[in-house]
Amino acid sequence: MLNVALLGAGRIGQVHARSIAADKNSRLVAVADVVSDAARSLAERTGAKAMTIEEILADPAIDAVLIATSTDTHSDLIERASAAGKAVLCEKPVDLSLERALACQKTVGGESVMIGFNRRFDPNFAALKAAFDAGEIGRAELLSITSFDPAPPPVSYVKVSGGLFRDMMIHDFDMACWLMGGAPEKVTAVGSSLVDPAIGEAGDVDTAAVTMTWADGRIAVIKNSRRAGYGYDQRVELLGSEGLLSARNVLENTVEKITAAGAASAKPVYFFLERYMRAYETEWTAFVDAVENKSAFPVTLRDGVAALACAEAATRSSQTGETVTLTPDMLGA
Amino acid sequence: MLNVALLGAGRIGQVHARSIAADKNSRLVAVADVVSDAARSLAERTGAKAMTIEEILADPAIDAVLIATSTDTHSDLIERASAAGKAVLCEKPVDLSLERALACQKTVGGESVMIGFNRRFDPNFAALKAAFDAGEIGRAELLSITSFDPAPPPVSYVKVSGGLFRDMMIHDFDMACWLMGGAPEKVTAVGSSLVDPAIGEAGDVDTAAVTMTWADGRIAVIKNSRRAGYGYDQRVELLGSEGLLSARNVLENTVEKITAAGAASAKPVYFFLERYMRAYETEWTAFVDAVENKSAFPVTLRDGVAALACAEAATRSSQTGETVTLTPDMLGA
Amino acid sequence: MLNVALLGAGRIGQVHARSIAADKNSRLVAVADVVSDAARSLAERTGAKAMTIEEILADPAIDAVLIATSTDTHSDLIERASAAGKAVLCEKPVDLSLERALACQKTVGGESVMIGFNRRFDPNFAALKAAFDAGEIGRAELLSITSFDPAPPPVSYVKVSGGLFRDMMIHDFDMACWLMGGAPEKVTAVGSSLVDPAIGEAGDVDTAAVTMTWADGRIAVIKNSRRAGYGYDQRVELLGSEGLLSARNVLENTVEKITAAGAASAKPVYFFLERYMRAYETEWTAFVDAVENKSAFPVTLRDGVAALACAEAATRSSQTGETVTLTPDMLGA
Amino acid sequence: MLNVALLGAGRIGQVHARSIAADKNSRLVAVADVVSDAARSLAERTGAKAMTIEEILADPAIDAVLIATSTDTHSDLIERASAAGKAVLCEKPVDLSLERALACQKTVGGESVMIGFNRRFDPNFAALKAAFDAGEIGRAELLSITSFDPAPPPVSYVKVSGGLFRDMMIHDFDMACWLMGGAPEKVTAVGSSLVDPAIGEAGDVDTAAVTMTWADGRIAVIKNSRRAGYGYDQRVELLGSEGLLSARNVLENTVEKITAAGAASAKPVYFFLERYMRAYETEWTAFVDAVENKSAFPVTLRDGVAALACAEAATRSSQTGETVTLTPDMLGA
Repeated sequence: MLNVALLGAGRIGQVHARSIAADKNSRLVAVADVVSDAARSLAERTGAKAMTIEEILADPAIDAVLIATSTDTHSDLIERASAAGKAVLCEKPVDLSLERALACQKTVGGESVMIGFNRRFDPNFAALKAAFDAGEIGRAELLSITSFDPAPPPVSYVKVSGGLFRDMMIHDFDMACWLMGGAPEKVTAVGSSLVDPAIGEAGDVDTAAVTMTWADGRIAVIKNSRRAGYGYDQRVELLGSEGLLSARNVLENTVEKITAAGAASAKPVYFFLERYMRAYETEWTAFVDAVENKSAFPVTLRDGVAALACAEAATRSSQTGETVTLTPDMLGA
Repeated sequence: MLNVALLGAGRIGQVHARSIAADKNSRLVAVADVVSDAARSLAERTGAKAMTIEEILADPAIDAVLIATSTDTHSDLIERASAAGKAVLCEKPVDLSLERALACQKTVGGESVMIGFNRRFDPNFAALKAAFDAGEIGRAELLSITSFDPAPPPVSYVKVSGGLFRDMMIHDFDMACWLMGGAPEKVTAVGSSLVDPAIGEAGDVDTAAVTMTWADGRIAVIKNSRRAGYGYDQRVELLGSEGLLSARNVLENTVEKITAAGAASAKPVYFFLERYMRAYETEWTAFVDAVENKSAFPVTLRDGVAALACAEAATRSSQTGETVTLTPDMLGA
Repeated sequence: MLNVALLGAGRIGQVHARSIAADKNSRLVAVADVVSDAARSLAERTGAKAMTIEEILADPAIDAVLIATSTDTHSDLIERASAAGKAVLCEKPVDLSLERALACQKTVGGESVMIGFNRRFDPNFAALKAAFDAGEIGRAELLSITSFDPAPPPVSYVKVSGGLFRDMMIHDFDMACWLMGGAPEKVTAVGSSLVDPAIGEAGDVDTAAVTMTWADGRIAVIKNSRRAGYGYDQRVELLGSEGLLSARNVLENTVEKITAAGAASAKPVYFFLERYMRAYETEWTAFVDAVENKSAFPVTLRDGVAALACAEAATRSSQTGETVTLTPDMLGA
Repeated sequence: MLNVALLGAGRIGQVHARSIAADKNSRLVAVADVVSDAARSLAERTGAKAMTIEEILADPAIDAVLIATSTDTHSDLIERASAAGKAVLCEKPVDLSLERALACQKTVGGESVMIGFNRRFDPNFAALKAAFDAGEIGRAELLSITSFDPAPPPVSYVKVSGGLFRDMMIHDFDMACWLMGGAPEKVTAVGSSLVDPAIGEAGDVDTAAVTMTWADGRIAVIKNSRRAGYGYDQRVELLGSEGLLSARNVLENTVEKITAAGAASAKPVYFFLERYMRAYETEWTAFVDAVENKSAFPVTLRDGVAALACAEAATRSSQTGETVTLTPDMLGA
């Protein structure tokens, strides 16, 4: 039984609290939050204790911490929790600063911490990966990822988010590195502000396309939009030497209506909670399993750094109009 | 090169004229119609000659006749054309009277004439049949046929049509006998007039369900409606001991739209011309091939009689509320 | 907060235990089972108490009972729990004996108890019903229900199950009555033993088709098979005067693979636990809501009796080969 | 009635011969080919006359020429046929040399000739365009085109093809300009030789991704592969401010099989003849209509030049690794 402390009692922290409760091998014992009321309230609902981070890290009865605080605190908390001997699952992204993330990786090691790239645990993407790994479409050639949010976040959020490439496309960078088996060599990005002029005024983009190439010639294309309007559009498509694998959207229901006006069916589910609830649960189970069995984490700090390096390169490319080469330095290799 | 005469220059006759022209091994040389203007007009457009049926049957240069006249003339024309030594393809149904069709079969033989059950030549149903014949789902157990017209015909037509079971479901009876490998043992039918009260007043039904069982316990269910509203709904589904085969509808196009209001896509194509044009062409080619190679017809008069016997049984069952057993007499066996 | 006792700690009882725990307005306080170890074990895992039925019914702190015992005890327990003033949710079917169920209904009243027809709470079927109720396809004309289990139960179970119509198709009868707004007038059934000869030797069928008609001419067709092989095939299709509504299967995942061999995608989920877990949760929430708000139950004993009357009629029809008319007596009306 | 001469009796010429015959307002009267046997053979089969190009251009009875000769002759023939007063439909691409195509455009004018971008006439892409033009998804933001051939051409062909961007992606460039309403501002391309090393040795790529941006920020992504393996993968997807439009593949048939091994369905049709036969017919009809009604051509030489300019830019970008800006010079503007 893993005794777990949750750092961060916000929206995503509450999602994780549910997963911790649902796993019969883990127990939520402590909650910390800078807003102490938030910690207290979540602690009460879950039978845990509201504690400070200091108390948590000092408590030998606590085996693991789940870091779901604001991004700028991730690297610090990873370092402190690791130093305190806790097993760590940290939400993505590792950091907004690639430099800081690299320093963190240098300090704690690339494999010692698990990063919460939840999409790897989505049953659809996992099935696609398994089919590819089983050789069902031969060698990878051309990967395509579509990832549209239903609606843009408030501009206030955009301003502190690190920008679309670090905040939103980070998931897709990880998906690409995961499916292609490592980081790309080159990244070219274009981005526009088409959805909300205020996003452009804040220096960010809301619509973007990124092309990545690997040293052996393989290619990946990622498309992002902050506003699909119809829900959460999350698709992956991989062309291999012997065929195509694609993971389509998850729909609200399976009902179809056909009338003289045409056929109508359901939209994709609206956002990440509907789409990825089960992925969060599986992610947590995978973390607990790895800790209990002292086996390798399925997603590591090194993966988090690689995704962030792609985001850094894409951000630079979209600003300069030039292709950016990922150097070993950028990956901490 | 097969020299062909077309008997009947109406809508379906014109469809066949196109298929005859499209097949490089056949040539339309003569057209007959009770409305001599119709014959003349079609003959002119196709480079054929308007002739009377008597002239056609007496002309030794004519190898084959395609009978697309009104149903009440089919049996007579089959007999006369056969007697004149012509190869015959006759539109479905063989006759509205099972008795008359049986007499015709007795006269000319069950295998000597091809009947135009076009759906067997639809690429989708043909692919389903081929997969079943290849053993892909094991033994047949439960067959389901959905067959809805887009809109009901005029009541004037209904009155002379022989009723829904003989006029419309006849196709589905043939499909069932074809897929199940022979005629059923028992037929139970229910029918209602829900679409147009005038159809009910004319003594017919517009919505019907028929259950058929074979001597070995296999079951088929056929559903018909004269009015789907949205187009031509033509689906077949066969449950076997190892899986399910289904043939879905053919849609107007492959475009999908997703907005906040949901996903919208195209309807099934509107009616039989759009859906079965290619099936008519393939049917004709199969006829020409069989004649040229002196091989067995893929659909015979015997098949036409079996479908009509099912229709007769269904009509009787829907009127009496009782299950009707198909006797050998009803099949001319 | 509703204090709940669970009668029956078997497979379906455990499913309900989870739903009771998941609903924040209910609490599982007691578990009873004829196998006292089963009750004790489930009680321990859930923090409830193992009690006898007598103790439960006598305990004023218990507000509601969920009856998930063997079918032959349902009517008795409904009557005893009702007499004890408990709110009651009873698993389907009400009883194997229509006579006994009618007596039970007479004793406790048709609306006083909720029956667990879980499929009404499936989000797909619920969305279909909502669209129909909103008038999206006009008036109902022809309903079609496909319901195939993945694999047949052991013959030992078949022998005590009451037969396919009472045990398996009972769900579809309820679905039909629910969608059509009341019980049919006539029922015609055919059934065969095609899947497992031992089922036939036990006097039951494993493959069946039932046609039902309503007094106003509307028609429903239900198809059942005990063995689809590929998973749980659960589909509903309703033709209305202005279009078609259909609810398709829920698939294991959304991945598609296309190679030279064709396109491959996922099967339907394997069985009712995968398909209907969420439906069971929603069903329980609906029960709790109705009890707390003293509002009408969404599925009543009267509905349970109607479905059982259909099953009774279908059983008789399949044995005699004749159509059976549902009399007011059979519905307790 | 338009009297038409066909220049080029190869594979695509024969496709056009069929369309000319199928249109009741046009008649194929002459065929020319550098291989005089090919011209004679096609002429015989179609009832046309084998003639030299000189004879054709000099013959006042010939109204229109369809240029389906090798690409390097297109510009010359466009100029000569225009000078001779013939209506011209010329196959894509206009030329392999943008310079030569621009000169041709300068000579004959951008709107005087129709270019054969057949995909615009595909019913699926046409339906997508119509829905977009009708405002069904608001303003365009992000366009995505997937275009994979089933199998790579022989290397001998690749060597003279002008390369993937001019030979294959030219269709997608036209599709993008058509849907976005004009040529892009910037083009970035990456390409690899992953399918066949011999293609790489010949200096070409077989797998490529191109990103294009318009002056107002709109983005398009095109993906090409010479070898999908499973057939002709031709999809378009357009994200707008209010939703998504996508045109999916056309499949060989609508049959689905579900067994314990999963669900299997048909592949996309194998290549352009199966997919675009109807598009070629509609294209021809559109040409005849425009000529007869003296109305504007739906695809002009100017469109052909724009697509070629995109191909030129993409070729250069894939070679230099830099983004290429389309100048007015490159469009002949």
